[in-house]
Amino acid sequence: MASDRWDPRPAGVDDAGEVARLLHQFNGEFGSPSPGPDVLATRLRVLLAADDTVAVLAGRPAVAVALVTLRTNVWYAGRVALLDELYVVPHLRGRGIGSAVLDWLVPELRAGGVDLVEINVDEGDVDAQRFYERHGFSPTEPGSAERSFYYFRELTT
Amino acid sequence: MASDRWDPRPAGVDDAGEVARLLHQFNGEFGSPSPGPDVLATRLRVLLAADDTVAVLAGRPAVAVALVTLRTNVWYAGRVALLDELYVVPHLRGRGIGSAVLDWLVPELRAGGVDLVEINVDEGDVDAQRFYERHGFSPTEPGSAERSFYYFRELTT
Repeated sequence: MASDRWDPRPAGVDDAGEVARLLHQFNGEFGSPSPGPDVLATRLRVLLAADDTVAVLAGRPAVAVALVTLRTNVWYAGRVALLDELYVVPHLRGRGIGSAVLDWLVPELRAGGVDLVEINVDEGDVDAQRFYERHGFSPTEPGSAERSFYYFRELTT
Repeated sequence: MASDRWDPRPAGVDDAGEVARLLHQFNGEFGSPSPGPDVLATRLRVLLAADDTVAVLAGRPAVAVALVTLRTNVWYAGRVALLDELYVVPHLRGRGIGSAVLDWLVPELRAGGVDLVEINVDEGDVDAQRFYERHGFSPTEPGSAERSFYYFRELTT
């Protein structure tokens, strides 16, 4: 399996630095602000020690990362997982690494009692939309054509 | 203040039945599946006893409910809140009850260490989009016109 080749695996507290390095690189590539790899690593050492954050690394050294946060939801008996990030380093895209990570991750989440996986995808990123649709994600409820937009408000300012 | 009249307040474990009644009515109105008020109330008694679910009731008897779940996020030092539901009974809409709930809720979340509030809004629900934009929410990052779609995959089947 392609999945095996990249060896997707859960990141533990000891992997916080490697997860942070990839997440920082991710935000740098897309021009999003990042508090820097050291701050991220410090946060990740706390987050990865708890049971509501899951990170996945693939490749050795790691060339891809997924970050998932778990929460409760009144409509489901189990938990809901949000795929906060899925990143593959630029020079290795198109080789199925993202698919390998998802193919490893989703059954893990299911086995861990997750009932729903969510992700927000840029409106114009048709490639990402197709990628997630191939992996069983949908922007609409069955029988509906109504998608939803993600809205947010920062409270830090 | 209009906010005072409807007396927005946090729902405790003892309010689980009233929160469940309104959430069940919400899903009934929009044709979404609901496990029924009894199952919802049982779940809510557990959820509202923990610190990662916040429910708000307004009116006596309650005529509006908001449900928020909290989680961590690596990009913020504080927590991220998702407004899962905001519901006002049909015959009292247009009177500012939703605004009263949000005006009460957002400062509470901020005081509780929340750095970001999120909500998914139906693509065609322009009224709701305007409502949230009036309350400081945005579908785009500053300087960007790129919105995001909410994608999901249920793992229960």
